[in-house]
Amino acid sequence: MVGRIPSDSQLSTSQFNLVGRSVVTLDDITASQISYLLRKASFISEHLPEVSHAAAGKILATLFYEPSTRTRLSFETAMLRLGGHVIGFSSAQNASVSKGESISDTLKTVSNYADVVAIRHPKEGAALVASKAASVPVINAGDGGHMHPTQTLADLATLQSRFGRITDLTVGLCGDLTFGRTVHSLIETLCRFGHVKFVLVSPKELTMPQYVLDRINASDSCSYEEVTDLTAVIGDLDVLYMTRVQKERFFNEDDYLRLRDTYILDADKLRLAKPTMAVLHPLPRVNEIATEVDDDPRAAYFEQVKNGMLMRMALMSSVVGAPLPGFADDSDENVEVHA
Amino acid sequence: MVGRIPSDSQLSTSQFNLVGRSVVTLDDITASQISYLLRKASFISEHLPEVSHAAAGKILATLFYEPSTRTRLSFETAMLRLGGHVIGFSSAQNASVSKGESISDTLKTVSNYADVVAIRHPKEGAALVASKAASVPVINAGDGGHMHPTQTLADLATLQSRFGRITDLTVGLCGDLTFGRTVHSLIETLCRFGHVKFVLVSPKELTMPQYVLDRINASDSCSYEEVTDLTAVIGDLDVLYMTRVQKERFFNEDDYLRLRDTYILDADKLRLAKPTMAVLHPLPRVNEIATEVDDDPRAAYFEQVKNGMLMRMALMSSVVGAPLPGFADDSDENVEVHA
Amino acid sequence: MVGRIPSDSQLSTSQFNLVGRSVVTLDDITASQISYLLRKASFISEHLPEVSHAAAGKILATLFYEPSTRTRLSFETAMLRLGGHVIGFSSAQNASVSKGESISDTLKTVSNYADVVAIRHPKEGAALVASKAASVPVINAGDGGHMHPTQTLADLATLQSRFGRITDLTVGLCGDLTFGRTVHSLIETLCRFGHVKFVLVSPKELTMPQYVLDRINASDSCSYEEVTDLTAVIGDLDVLYMTRVQKERFFNEDDYLRLRDTYILDADKLRLAKPTMAVLHPLPRVNEIATEVDDDPRAAYFEQVKNGMLMRMALMSSVVGAPLPGFADDSDENVEVHA
Repeated sequence: MVGRIPSDSQLSTSQFNLVGRSVVTLDDITASQISYLLRKASFISEHLPEVSHAAAGKILATLFYEPSTRTRLSFETAMLRLGGHVIGFSSAQNASVSKGESISDTLKTVSNYADVVAIRHPKEGAALVASKAASVPVINAGDGGHMHPTQTLADLATLQSRFGRITDLTVGLCGDLTFGRTVHSLIETLCRFGHVKFVLVSPKELTMPQYVLDRINASDSCSYEEVTDLTAVIGDLDVLYMTRVQKERFFNEDDYLRLRDTYILDADKLRLAKPTMAVLHPLPRVNEIATEVDDDPRAAYFEQVKNGMLMRMALMSSVVGAPLPGFADDSDENVEVHA
Repeated sequence: MVGRIPSDSQLSTSQFNLVGRSVVTLDDITASQISYLLRKASFISEHLPEVSHAAAGKILATLFYEPSTRTRLSFETAMLRLGGHVIGFSSAQNASVSKGESISDTLKTVSNYADVVAIRHPKEGAALVASKAASVPVINAGDGGHMHPTQTLADLATLQSRFGRITDLTVGLCGDLTFGRTVHSLIETLCRFGHVKFVLVSPKELTMPQYVLDRINASDSCSYEEVTDLTAVIGDLDVLYMTRVQKERFFNEDDYLRLRDTYILDADKLRLAKPTMAVLHPLPRVNEIATEVDDDPRAAYFEQVKNGMLMRMALMSSVVGAPLPGFADDSDENVEVHA
Repeated sequence: MVGRIPSDSQLSTSQFNLVGRSVVTLDDITASQISYLLRKASFISEHLPEVSHAAAGKILATLFYEPSTRTRLSFETAMLRLGGHVIGFSSAQNASVSKGESISDTLKTVSNYADVVAIRHPKEGAALVASKAASVPVINAGDGGHMHPTQTLADLATLQSRFGRITDLTVGLCGDLTFGRTVHSLIETLCRFGHVKFVLVSPKELTMPQYVLDRINASDSCSYEEVTDLTAVIGDLDVLYMTRVQKERFFNEDDYLRLRDTYILDADKLRLAKPTMAVLHPLPRVNEIATEVDDDPRAAYFEQVKNGMLMRMALMSSVVGAPLPGFADDSDENVEVHA
């Protein structure tokens, strides 16, 4: 996916123009465009009735080769709340993939039906293949890893909504930092904007991969520290991004059981945190955040769900070229890029 | 679920106000509100074009953890015919439940997407759990037993439509009265309105449970008789509610085969009935009503399907707060409660 | 299905009136009505925004007892692009068919929900049974064989769109002509219009059945020749309709491997064809057309997908009685029937 970053000079009418653009990774769009989407999502949040016909007549195809109810329903709700329609399938067994059709042929077919495609596929690279075959924009809803660009956009929108900015924050990431691709993507994207201090909290078995640390080091205004004890650092954090520590990552069950509780957020640990800290989690949550935390005002993970829907509304309205009544496309207020 | 019956004094602007109300069982709404829904469904039936945009922009989520095509399509059609949208899943294998997410978390997530939820789940109590977690109204589309409130509402609407009333009727219930929770719910609800004579027709192996008989006895204006022979009583009935006698309810196949035919409604038995009798059945029907009965004007079971859709339109428009053009919400004409 | 061909005198207001009509096979509609649908699809193609509310409030039910994503999404897109709604299921495992309900009962139920039904079922004859039980129009989306009337309509629309006519053409059909019911249906329908020369290209093991040859012979203005070598005849063709040669049709793998390549269309073979030839294929394609052909202007198989959607829009708007703004229903210009 090297070389897919568009230069601003390729953009037709405005630096923010995303019409027809596929988004396989966030490298497909500029930091300015991400800021633009954050502004747009914030506008949508305040103007849901006004935008409810913006994409009238547009069709989203959700091609989910593996089930992901949360993500699928978020995309579908986003298109419906823009006044558009939805077609698609929710798992490969309901699709005709048993007949051996290639992803490319499916996308060439679906390009005749839909104005934008959200694809989820178990194989890494499937979304890129799809985007090359389709004649309409394709948005990666997850291929292989569970990272996908609109998850990271949801995370950013939650920071923006809680703090009014996505910079000048101390961001703790806790749990499985080795395999948790969601947090890798969030760090990489925050580094494009800069001015973030990362606090990486994990067992020794599950530390952050070197290439992510290198990415942080490459950003002058970003830094990190690695710790194993959440309670020792939780008081410093503006943001705590929790992830699940999965049993299957450990060689023996004893290690898992010993470590698991250390990385569970409960009311006791939360008492040590700032009153303004925001707790994020990509969901689904199993037991890594105690349900007693849900009613704490710092719990932001169900807000994240709403922000994901709003960012998908912002992104889809942009790539299908549906202008939002009352939203100034070319305004550049609030755009902050200091990478 | 004891204590969930709201008192009328809790209702905000009118005794019929159902905005935001979850309906797990019919005990969640008053008899007056049921009468109100019957009036509303009757209005909708005559004004489908006028109400076709009443719920514009509203989203129904159908969360079906087990398949039930008939019920799901009825809910979905109801929302679409009100001008709203639909998201959801049709079976657990298409949902992400394999990831171990709790029903509560799913409902907290979906509350960000939808304005009303219809849930179907194999486990008893799931709908109550869902209604407590959700921030939007939840309607039970079946959990555990196959009884659910909108089935009973469909039954009531069919009586109302055929007879102009749901009281002063002789109602026969025939077949499996032990396990047929649909008929238990219908009896309990009719007893809230009173003035019904029940004729309970079943083999000795499948008689009505005592708690249902107690409920009838508790209503001064209701009474019952228990018989084993349908042909002996069919001539007395205003309503004949058929249910399926399932093979697996019997200890040996001989008993099943001997009894089964006694409880099959065919043209011969129907000849003994009043010309105005209405035959109801919750569907799906296997062989307990011969297909030769379908074209008889007394067959009301496919009308019941339509009435179910109309009652779901009445209920959903009420709980999402979508006023119907031309329908007077606060009128109390036709409301009859004599329980 | 003998005797289901309606005479024009049965048609109510115009010879083209299809309101309420089920289409199980193309014998259910007259050649004039097919021409009318071709005209209508061509109009729709040029007036998508104008027809985008034509079927507002109408509901399509897609009852797919076996998965067929391409066909299902085509029907659903067609209804959505007419401004209607969609309900349904995409495979039997998501439906309640395990409860043993008959197709007739399902259709009687769904007739209360939908204004038109598209049914796909593994058993031959299921669509006819469905059409007899339903009180709304039923369109066969495939039962048993993979032939279904809207596939043939898509093929005809592709000829009409490429050549401005469906007569006076040399049409090659290549591959599995024995079991390929799509090509049988296309031939039979073209013979109703006449003036086509068929070139039948297949291995000896997979030649055209005698009853199809008889049908061609019964049309004075049609003729055919049978050959085994595609390269020898490709230069004569206006149309080349490719089908898949399936391994399981052969007694031994050697025969399959030897013959398969002969019936693969690639750039080399295409070099021998007329510059205006159109390549059709019902899709999904496995390897019988090399992907290098896709970008050749003669490749018409993804256009066929779009034409299928347009014909489904034409057909569904006709059977539900949704007039298209600006389209003159009773005009008979361009209707050519010389069978």
